[in-house]
Amino acid sequence: MKQLILLRHGQSQWNLENRFTGWTDVALTPAGREEARKAGQMIKDAGLKPQYGFTSYLSRAIDTLHLALSEMDRLWIPVEKDWHLNERHYGALQGLNKAETAKQYSDEQVRLWRRSYDVEPPALTVDDPRYPGNDDRYSTLSPDELPLTESLRDAIKRVYPCWEEKIAPALRLYDTVIVAAHGNSLRALVMMLLHLTPEQIMNEEIPTGRPRLFILDDRLQVTDEKYL
Amino acid sequence: MKQLILLRHGQSQWNLENRFTGWTDVALTPAGREEARKAGQMIKDAGLKPQYGFTSYLSRAIDTLHLALSEMDRLWIPVEKDWHLNERHYGALQGLNKAETAKQYSDEQVRLWRRSYDVEPPALTVDDPRYPGNDDRYSTLSPDELPLTESLRDAIKRVYPCWEEKIAPALRLYDTVIVAAHGNSLRALVMMLLHLTPEQIMNEEIPTGRPRLFILDDRLQVTDEKYL
Repeated sequence: MKQLILLRHGQSQWNLENRFTGWTDVALTPAGREEARKAGQMIKDAGLKPQYGFTSYLSRAIDTLHLALSEMDRLWIPVEKDWHLNERHYGALQGLNKAETAKQYSDEQVRLWRRSYDVEPPALTVDDPRYPGNDDRYSTLSPDELPLTESLRDAIKRVYPCWEEKIAPALRLYDTVIVAAHGNSLRALVMMLLHLTPEQIMNEEIPTGRPRLFILDDRLQVTDEKYL
Repeated sequence: MKQLILLRHGQSQWNLENRFTGWTDVALTPAGREEARKAGQMIKDAGLKPQYGFTSYLSRAIDTLHLALSEMDRLWIPVEKDWHLNERHYGALQGLNKAETAKQYSDEQVRLWRRSYDVEPPALTVDDPRYPGNDDRYSTLSPDELPLTESLRDAIKRVYPCWEEKIAPALRLYDTVIVAAHGNSLRALVMMLLHLTPEQIMNEEIPTGRPRLFILDDRLQVTDEKYL
Protein backbone atom coordinates (compact mmCIF):
# COMPACT_ATOMS: atom_id res chain seq x y z
CA MET A 1 0.00 0.00 0.00
CA LYS A 2 1.26 3.44 -0.98
CA GLN A 3 0.21 6.86 0.32
CA LEU A 4 0.30 10.07 -1.67
CA ILE A 5 -0.47 13.37 0.07
CA LEU A 6 -1.33 16.41 -2.05
CA LEU A 7 -1.16 19.85 -0.43
CA ARG A 8 -2.09 23.16 -2.04
CA HIS A 9 -0.27 26.22 -0.72
CA GLY A 10 -2.25 28.73 1.28
CA GLN A 11 -2.86 32.43 0.89
CA SER A 12 -0.21 34.38 -1.02
CA GLN A 13 0.20 38.15 -1.17
CA TRP A 14 -1.48 38.29 -4.58
CA ASN A 15 -4.41 36.11 -3.53
CA LEU A 16 -4.95 38.80 -0.93
CA GLU A 17 -4.64 41.55 -3.56
CA ASN A 18 -6.90 39.64 -5.99
CA ARG A 19 -4.27 39.58 -8.75
CA PHE A 20 -3.51 36.90 -11.35
CA THR A 21 -0.37 35.15 -10.12
CA GLY A 22 0.59 32.17 -12.30
CA TRP A 23 4.38 31.85 -12.41
CA THR A 24 5.01 35.10 -10.50
CA ASP A 25 7.03 34.25 -7.40
CA VAL A 26 4.80 35.80 -4.75
CA ALA A 27 5.35 35.10 -1.05
CA LEU A 28 2.87 33.52 1.35
CA THR A 29 1.08 35.89 3.72
CA PRO A 30 1.30 35.21 7.48
CA ALA A 31 -2.13 33.53 7.12
CA GLY A 32 -0.75 31.35 4.33
CA ARG A 33 2.20 30.34 6.49
CA GLU A 34 -0.19 29.41 9.28
CA GLU A 35 -2.24 27.28 6.85
CA ALA A 36 0.95 25.39 5.97
CA ARG A 37 1.84 24.78 9.62
CA LYS A 38 -1.69 23.55 10.38
CA ALA A 39 -1.55 21.21 7.38
CA GLY A 40 1.71 19.78 8.72
CA GLN A 41 0.07 19.25 12.10
CA MET A 42 -2.88 17.46 10.46
CA ILE A 43 -0.55 15.12 8.57
CA LYS A 44 1.39 14.42 11.75
CA ASP A 45 -1.80 13.84 13.76
CA ALA A 46 -2.97 11.36 11.10
CA GLY A 47 0.18 9.34 11.78
CA LEU A 48 1.48 9.86 8.26
CA LYS A 49 5.24 10.06 7.77
CA PRO A 50 6.22 11.31 4.33
CA GLN A 51 9.57 9.91 3.21
CA TYR A 52 9.99 11.95 0.03
CA GLY A 53 8.66 15.35 -1.07
CA PHE A 54 8.05 17.20 -4.30
CA THR A 55 7.30 20.85 -4.87
CA SER A 56 7.44 23.47 -7.61
CA TYR A 57 9.99 26.18 -8.39
CA LEU A 58 7.76 28.78 -6.72
CA SER A 59 8.52 30.01 -3.21
CA ARG A 60 4.94 29.82 -1.95
CA ALA A 61 4.84 26.06 -2.56
CA ILE A 62 8.43 25.45 -1.38
CA ASP A 63 7.72 27.41 1.82
CA THR A 64 4.47 25.51 2.36
CA LEU A 65 6.26 22.17 2.18
CA HIS A 66 9.07 23.42 4.43
CA LEU A 67 6.68 24.73 7.09
CA ALA A 68 4.55 21.57 6.97
CA LEU A 69 7.58 19.26 7.21
CA SER A 70 8.93 21.35 10.06
CA GLU A 71 5.71 20.71 12.03
CA MET A 72 6.17 16.98 11.38
CA ASP A 73 9.84 17.03 12.51
CA ARG A 74 10.63 15.74 9.03
CA LEU A 75 12.63 18.59 7.45
CA TRP A 76 15.35 16.04 6.75
CA ILE A 77 13.49 14.08 4.05
CA PRO A 78 14.66 14.57 0.46
CA VAL A 79 12.69 17.28 -1.35
CA GLU A 80 12.80 17.64 -5.11
CA LYS A 81 11.77 20.87 -6.82
CA ASP A 82 10.40 20.67 -10.35
CA TRP A 83 9.11 23.53 -12.53
CA HIS A 84 6.61 21.10 -14.08
CA LEU A 85 4.66 21.41 -10.80
CA ASN A 86 4.39 25.21 -11.13
CA GLU A 87 0.99 26.86 -11.20
CA ARG A 88 -0.66 27.30 -14.62
CA HIS A 89 1.02 30.20 -16.47
CA TYR A 90 -1.45 33.05 -16.76
CA GLY A 91 0.27 34.82 -19.68
CA ALA A 92 -0.16 38.57 -20.01
CA LEU A 93 -2.74 38.55 -17.20
CA GLN A 94 -0.05 37.89 -14.57
CA GLY A 95 0.08 40.81 -12.16
CA LEU A 96 -3.28 42.28 -13.22
CA ASN A 97 -6.07 42.77 -10.72
CA LYS A 98 -8.89 40.32 -11.41
CA ALA A 99 -11.68 42.84 -10.88
CA GLU A 100 -10.04 45.47 -13.10
CA THR A 101 -9.41 42.86 -15.78
CA ALA A 102 -13.10 41.93 -15.68
CA LYS A 103 -14.04 45.59 -16.14
CA GLN A 104 -11.64 45.91 -19.07
CA TYR A 105 -12.53 42.68 -20.90
CA SER A 106 -15.95 41.61 -19.43
CA ASP A 107 -16.83 39.18 -16.71
CA GLU A 108 -17.61 36.53 -19.28
CA GLN A 109 -14.16 36.76 -20.90
CA VAL A 110 -12.38 36.51 -17.54
CA ARG A 111 -14.59 33.59 -16.58
CA LEU A 112 -13.58 31.84 -19.82
CA TRP A 113 -9.87 32.40 -19.15
CA ARG A 114 -10.19 31.19 -15.60
CA ARG A 115 -12.68 28.37 -15.89
CA SER A 116 -12.48 26.81 -19.34
CA TYR A 117 -10.34 23.81 -20.16
CA ASP A 118 -8.57 24.87 -23.31
CA VAL A 119 -8.82 28.66 -23.61
CA GLU A 120 -5.47 30.40 -23.15
CA PRO A 121 -5.18 33.88 -21.62
CA PRO A 122 -3.43 36.48 -23.84
CA ALA A 123 0.19 35.40 -24.37
CA LEU A 124 3.29 37.17 -23.11
CA THR A 125 5.82 38.30 -25.69
CA VAL A 126 9.45 37.22 -25.24
CA ASP A 127 10.51 40.85 -24.64
CA ASP A 128 8.14 41.10 -21.68
CA PRO A 129 9.98 41.30 -18.33
CA ARG A 130 7.55 38.62 -17.14
CA TYR A 131 8.78 36.13 -19.79
CA PRO A 132 10.10 33.09 -17.84
CA GLY A 133 13.22 33.07 -20.04
CA ASN A 134 14.30 36.21 -18.15
CA ASP A 135 14.26 34.33 -14.84
CA ASP A 136 17.44 32.64 -13.68
CA ARG A 137 15.56 29.60 -12.39
CA TYR A 138 14.38 28.67 -15.91
CA SER A 139 17.71 29.36 -17.63
CA THR A 140 18.33 25.69 -18.43
CA LEU A 141 14.96 25.23 -20.16
CA SER A 142 14.66 25.24 -23.95
CA PRO A 143 12.52 27.99 -25.53
CA ASP A 144 9.77 25.51 -26.41
CA GLU A 145 9.50 24.49 -22.76
CA LEU A 146 9.01 28.10 -21.61
CA PRO A 147 5.32 29.00 -21.65
CA LEU A 148 4.04 32.36 -22.90
CA THR A 149 0.59 31.42 -21.59
CA GLU A 150 -1.21 28.21 -20.70
CA SER A 151 -4.74 26.84 -20.79
CA LEU A 152 -5.65 24.39 -18.05
CA ARG A 153 -5.10 21.66 -20.66
CA ASP A 154 -1.55 22.93 -21.36
CA ALA A 155 -0.73 22.98 -17.65
CA ILE A 156 -2.08 19.47 -17.12
CA LYS A 157 -0.11 18.20 -20.10
CA ARG A 158 3.17 19.49 -18.70
CA VAL A 159 2.57 18.05 -15.22
CA TYR A 160 2.33 14.50 -16.64
CA PRO A 161 6.08 13.97 -17.25
CA CYS A 162 6.73 14.86 -13.61
CA TRP A 163 4.31 12.13 -12.54
CA GLU A 164 5.72 9.56 -14.95
CA GLU A 165 9.41 10.31 -14.43
CA LYS A 166 9.54 11.39 -10.79
CA ILE A 167 6.48 10.98 -8.56
CA ALA A 168 5.48 7.48 -9.68
CA PRO A 169 9.07 6.19 -9.41
CA ALA A 170 9.32 7.73 -5.91
CA LEU A 171 6.11 5.92 -4.93
CA ARG A 172 7.68 2.65 -6.02
CA LEU A 173 10.63 3.36 -3.68
CA TYR A 174 8.83 4.99 -0.74
CA ASP A 175 5.54 4.19 0.99
CA THR A 176 4.53 7.78 1.67
CA VAL A 177 5.16 10.73 -0.66
CA ILE A 178 3.99 14.36 -0.35
CA VAL A 179 3.51 16.89 -3.14
CA ALA A 180 3.08 20.57 -2.19
CA ALA A 181 2.03 22.59 -5.20
CA HIS A 182 -0.65 24.75 -6.79
CA GLY A 183 -4.37 24.60 -7.62
CA ASN A 184 -3.91 23.66 -11.25
CA SER A 185 -0.81 21.45 -11.06
CA LEU A 186 -2.56 19.46 -8.31
CA ARG A 187 -5.68 19.27 -10.50
CA ALA A 188 -3.53 17.59 -13.11
CA LEU A 189 -2.47 14.94 -10.60
CA VAL A 190 -6.04 14.45 -9.33
CA MET A 191 -7.34 14.13 -12.91
CA MET A 192 -4.85 11.39 -13.63
CA LEU A 193 -5.20 9.60 -10.30
CA LEU A 194 -9.02 9.50 -10.47
CA HIS A 195 -9.28 9.16 -14.29
CA LEU A 196 -11.45 12.29 -14.51
CA THR A 197 -12.75 13.90 -17.69
CA PRO A 198 -11.95 17.56 -18.54
CA GLU A 199 -15.49 18.48 -17.42
CA GLN A 200 -15.01 16.76 -14.11
CA ILE A 201 -11.61 18.29 -13.41
CA MET A 202 -12.88 21.80 -14.15
CA ASN A 203 -15.43 21.37 -11.37
CA GLU A 204 -12.84 20.01 -8.97
CA GLU A 205 -11.83 22.76 -6.54
CA ILE A 206 -8.65 22.00 -4.59
CA PRO A 207 -8.90 23.77 -1.22
CA THR A 208 -5.79 25.45 0.19
CA GLY A 209 -3.97 24.03 3.19
CA ARG A 210 -6.07 20.84 3.39
CA PRO A 211 -3.95 17.75 2.87
CA ARG A 212 -5.64 15.22 0.56
CA LEU A 213 -4.59 11.63 1.01
CA PHE A 214 -4.69 9.03 -1.77
CA ILE A 215 -4.22 5.36 -1.00
CA LEU A 216 -2.71 3.50 -3.95
CA ASP A 217 -2.10 -0.16 -4.62
CA ASP A 218 1.22 -1.45 -5.86
CA ARG A 219 0.22 -0.70 -9.45
CA LEU A 220 -0.37 2.90 -8.29
CA GLN A 221 -4.14 2.68 -8.80
CA VAL A 222 -6.20 4.63 -6.26
CA THR A 223 -8.12 2.41 -3.84
CA ASP A 224 -9.29 5.16 -1.49
CA GLU A 225 -8.97 8.90 -0.93
CA LYS A 226 -10.00 11.53 1.58
CA TYR A 227 -9.21 14.95 2.97
CA LEU A 228 -7.47 14.87 6.33
CA MET B 1 36.66 29.52 -11.33
CA LYS B 2 34.43 27.91 -8.70
CA GLN B 3 32.88 29.41 -5.57
CA LEU B 4 32.09 27.52 -2.40
CA ILE B 5 30.19 29.26 0.40
CA LEU B 6 30.24 27.76 3.90
CA LEU B 7 27.64 28.92 6.41
CA ARG B 8 27.38 27.87 10.04
CA HIS B 9 23.90 27.94 11.56
CA GLY B 10 23.18 30.58 14.17
CA GLN B 11 21.92 30.38 17.72
CA SER B 12 19.85 27.32 18.63
CA GLN B 13 17.72 26.84 21.73
CA TRP B 14 20.43 24.74 23.37
CA ASN B 15 23.20 27.22 22.56
CA LEU B 16 21.07 29.61 24.55
CA GLU B 17 20.63 27.08 27.38
CA ASN B 18 24.35 26.20 27.32
CA ARG B 19 23.71 22.50 26.69
CA PHE B 20 25.68 19.98 24.62
CA THR B 21 23.72 19.54 21.40
CA GLY B 22 25.49 17.28 18.90
CA TRP B 23 22.94 15.29 16.92
CA THR B 24 19.97 16.46 19.01
CA ASP B 25 17.52 18.17 16.65
CA VAL B 26 17.17 21.52 18.40
CA ALA B 27 15.43 24.47 16.71
CA LEU B 28 16.96 27.85 15.94
CA THR B 29 15.99 30.69 18.27
CA PRO B 30 14.46 33.85 16.74
CA ALA B 31 17.99 35.35 16.94
CA GLY B 32 19.36 32.34 15.05
CA ARG B 33 16.73 32.75 12.35
CA GLU B 34 17.67 36.40 12.02
CA GLU B 35 21.35 35.43 11.65
CA ALA B 36 20.38 33.14 8.78
CA ARG B 37 18.39 35.85 7.01
CA LYS B 38 21.24 38.34 7.39
CA ALA B 39 23.69 35.79 6.01
CA GLY B 40 21.42 35.36 2.98
CA GLN B 41 21.35 39.10 2.50
CA MET B 42 25.17 39.27 2.67
CA ILE B 43 25.50 36.56 0.03
CA LYS B 44 22.99 38.34 -2.18
CA ASP B 45 24.70 41.72 -1.69
CA ALA B 46 28.02 40.13 -2.67
CA GLY B 47 26.43 39.20 -6.02
CA LEU B 48 26.82 35.49 -5.35
CA LYS B 49 24.18 33.15 -6.79
CA PRO B 50 24.39 29.64 -5.38
CA GLN B 51 23.15 27.05 -7.86
CA TYR B 52 23.27 24.02 -5.58
CA GLY B 53 23.03 23.60 -1.81
CA PHE B 54 24.00 21.04 0.81
CA THR B 55 22.95 20.78 4.40
CA SER B 56 22.77 18.23 7.22
CA TYR B 57 19.87 16.16 8.58
CA LEU B 58 19.45 18.61 11.46
CA SER B 59 16.67 21.21 11.38
CA ARG B 60 18.81 24.13 12.57
CA ALA B 61 21.07 23.79 9.50
CA ILE B 62 18.21 23.01 7.08
CA ASP B 63 16.29 26.04 8.37
CA THR B 64 19.38 28.24 8.10
CA LEU B 65 19.83 27.32 4.43
CA HIS B 66 16.13 27.78 3.73
CA LEU B 67 16.01 31.23 5.35
CA ALA B 68 19.23 32.34 3.62
CA LEU B 69 18.07 31.11 0.19
CA SER B 70 14.72 32.79 0.73
CA GLU B 71 16.51 36.14 1.21
CA MET B 72 18.37 35.50 -2.07
CA ASP B 73 15.13 34.61 -3.95
CA ARG B 74 16.77 31.26 -4.64
CA LEU B 75 14.58 28.80 -2.75
CA TRP B 76 14.20 26.90 -6.03
CA ILE B 77 17.79 25.61 -6.24
CA PRO B 78 18.32 21.91 -5.54
CA VAL B 79 19.21 21.24 -1.90
CA GLU B 80 20.68 17.93 -0.79
CA LYS B 81 20.56 16.82 2.84
CA ASP B 82 23.27 14.48 4.09
CA TRP B 83 23.74 13.15 7.63
CA HIS B 84 27.51 13.18 7.03
CA LEU B 85 27.30 16.97 7.44
CA ASN B 86 25.73 16.67 10.92
CA GLU B 87 27.41 18.24 13.92
CA ARG B 88 29.95 16.13 15.79
CA HIS B 89 28.10 13.55 17.94
CA TYR B 90 28.59 14.42 21.60
CA GLY B 91 27.77 10.98 22.99
CA ALA B 92 26.31 10.76 26.48
CA LEU B 93 26.96 14.49 27.02
CA GLN B 94 24.12 15.41 24.64
CA GLY B 95 21.45 17.30 26.55
CA LEU B 96 23.64 18.03 29.58
CA ASN B 97 24.30 21.57 30.71
CA LYS B 98 27.92 22.51 30.03
CA ALA B 99 28.47 24.27 33.36
CA GLU B 100 26.94 21.42 35.38
CA THR B 101 29.01 18.90 33.45
CA ALA B 102 32.14 20.88 34.31
CA LYS B 103 31.17 20.80 38.01
CA GLN B 104 30.57 17.05 37.83
CA TYR B 105 33.70 16.07 35.88
CA SER B 106 36.08 19.10 36.20
CA ASP B 107 36.74 21.99 33.89
CA GLU B 108 39.81 20.28 32.53
CA GLN B 109 37.90 17.13 31.52
CA VAL B 110 35.19 19.14 29.74
CA ARG B 111 37.87 21.22 28.00
CA LEU B 112 39.48 18.00 26.77
CA TRP B 113 36.17 16.65 25.43
CA ARG B 114 35.40 19.93 23.71
CA ARG B 115 38.80 21.05 22.50
CA SER B 116 41.02 18.05 21.82
CA TYR B 117 41.33 16.38 18.44
CA ASP B 118 40.93 12.73 19.27
CA VAL B 119 39.33 12.45 22.71
CA GLU B 120 35.79 11.07 22.60
CA PRO B 121 33.12 12.11 25.13
CA PRO B 122 31.50 9.20 27.05
CA ALA B 123 29.64 6.96 24.60
CA LEU B 124 25.90 6.37 24.43
CA THR B 125 24.65 2.84 24.81
CA VAL B 126 22.33 1.45 22.14
CA ASP B 127 19.45 1.27 24.62
CA ASP B 128 19.72 5.03 25.27
CA PRO B 129 16.75 6.96 23.84
CA ARG B 130 19.35 9.33 22.38
CA TYR B 131 20.91 6.54 20.27
CA PRO B 132 20.60 7.67 16.61
CA GLY B 133 19.33 4.20 15.66
CA ASN B 134 16.08 5.14 17.44
CA ASP B 135 15.56 8.09 15.11
CA ASP B 136 13.55 7.54 11.92
CA ARG B 137 15.90 9.73 9.89
CA TYR B 138 18.82 7.34 10.40
CA SER B 139 16.82 4.14 9.86
CA THR B 140 18.60 3.30 6.59
CA LEU B 141 22.08 3.55 8.14
CA SER B 142 24.01 0.45 9.15
CA PRO B 143 24.91 0.04 12.86
CA ASP B 144 28.59 0.77 12.17
CA GLU B 145 27.64 4.09 10.58
CA LEU B 146 25.64 5.18 13.65
CA PRO B 147 27.90 6.97 16.13
CA LEU B 148 27.71 6.40 19.89
CA THR B 149 30.12 9.31 20.36
CA GLU B 150 32.65 11.15 18.19
CA SER B 151 35.96 12.88 18.65
CA LEU B 152 36.64 15.82 16.34
CA ARG B 153 38.79 13.40 14.33
CA ASP B 154 35.87 10.96 13.97
CA ALA B 155 33.57 13.74 12.80
CA ILE B 156 36.11 15.01 10.28
CA LYS B 157 36.64 11.52 8.95
CA ARG B 158 32.96 11.00 8.25
CA VAL B 159 32.55 14.36 6.50
CA TYR B 160 35.16 13.42 3.86
CA PRO B 161 32.96 11.01 1.84
CA CYS B 162 30.37 13.77 1.50
CA TRP B 163 33.05 16.04 0.00
CA GLU B 164 34.40 13.36 -2.32
CA GLU B 165 31.09 11.92 -3.46
CA LYS B 166 28.79 14.93 -3.41
CA ILE B 167 30.22 18.42 -2.87
CA ALA B 168 33.25 18.11 -5.16
CA PRO B 169 31.14 16.57 -7.98
CA ALA B 170 28.59 19.39 -7.56
CA LEU B 171 31.41 21.95 -7.88
CA ARG B 172 32.41 20.35 -11.17
CA LEU B 173 28.85 20.85 -12.45
CA TYR B 174 28.01 24.22 -10.87
CA ASP B 175 30.02 27.41 -10.44
CA THR B 176 28.62 28.34 -7.03
CA VAL B 177 27.73 25.90 -4.27
CA ILE B 178 26.61 26.62 -0.69
CA VAL B 179 26.96 24.35 2.35
CA ALA B 180 24.97 25.23 5.49
CA ALA B 181 26.08 23.08 8.40
CA HIS B 182 27.68 22.99 11.85
CA GLY B 183 30.86 24.15 13.58
CA ASN B 184 32.64 20.82 13.38
CA SER B 185 31.40 19.52 10.03
CA LEU B 186 32.44 22.86 8.50
CA ARG B 187 35.80 22.56 10.24
CA ALA B 188 36.28 19.27 8.38
CA LEU B 189 35.70 21.03 5.07
CA VAL B 190 38.00 23.94 5.99
CA MET B 191 40.74 21.53 7.10
CA MET B 192 40.63 19.78 3.78
CA LEU B 193 40.28 22.89 1.63
CA LEU B 194 43.21 24.67 3.33
CA HIS B 195 45.30 21.54 4.02
CA LEU B 196 45.42 22.30 7.77
CA THR B 197 46.99 20.14 10.46
CA PRO B 198 44.96 18.85 13.43
CA GLU B 199 46.58 21.57 15.59
CA GLN B 200 45.57 24.26 13.12
CA ILE B 201 41.98 23.07 12.75
CA MET B 202 41.49 22.95 16.52
CA ASN B 203 42.31 26.65 16.66
CA GLU B 204 40.00 27.46 13.77
CA GLU B 205 36.77 28.93 15.13
CA ILE B 206 33.94 29.04 12.59
CA PRO B 207 31.69 31.99 13.48
CA THR B 208 27.90 31.55 13.20
CA GLY B 209 25.95 33.30 10.47
CA ARG B 210 29.01 34.67 8.65
CA PRO B 211 29.26 33.26 5.12
CA ARG B 212 32.82 32.24 4.24
CA LEU B 213 33.66 32.24 0.56
CA PHE B 214 36.31 29.99 -0.99
CA ILE B 215 37.47 30.57 -4.55
CA LEU B 216 38.65 27.35 -6.18
CA ASP B 217 40.37 26.60 -9.45
CA ASP B 218 39.16 23.91 -11.81
CA ARG B 219 41.14 21.31 -9.88
CA LEU B 220 39.22 22.45 -6.77
CA GLN B 221 42.32 23.92 -5.12
CA VAL B 222 41.69 27.08 -3.08
CA THR B 223 43.12 30.23 -4.68
CA ASP B 224 41.51 32.74 -2.31
CA GLU B 225 39.12 32.91 0.64
CA LYS B 226 37.41 35.48 2.81
CA TYR B 227 34.46 36.13 5.08
CA LEU B 228 31.71 38.16 3.45
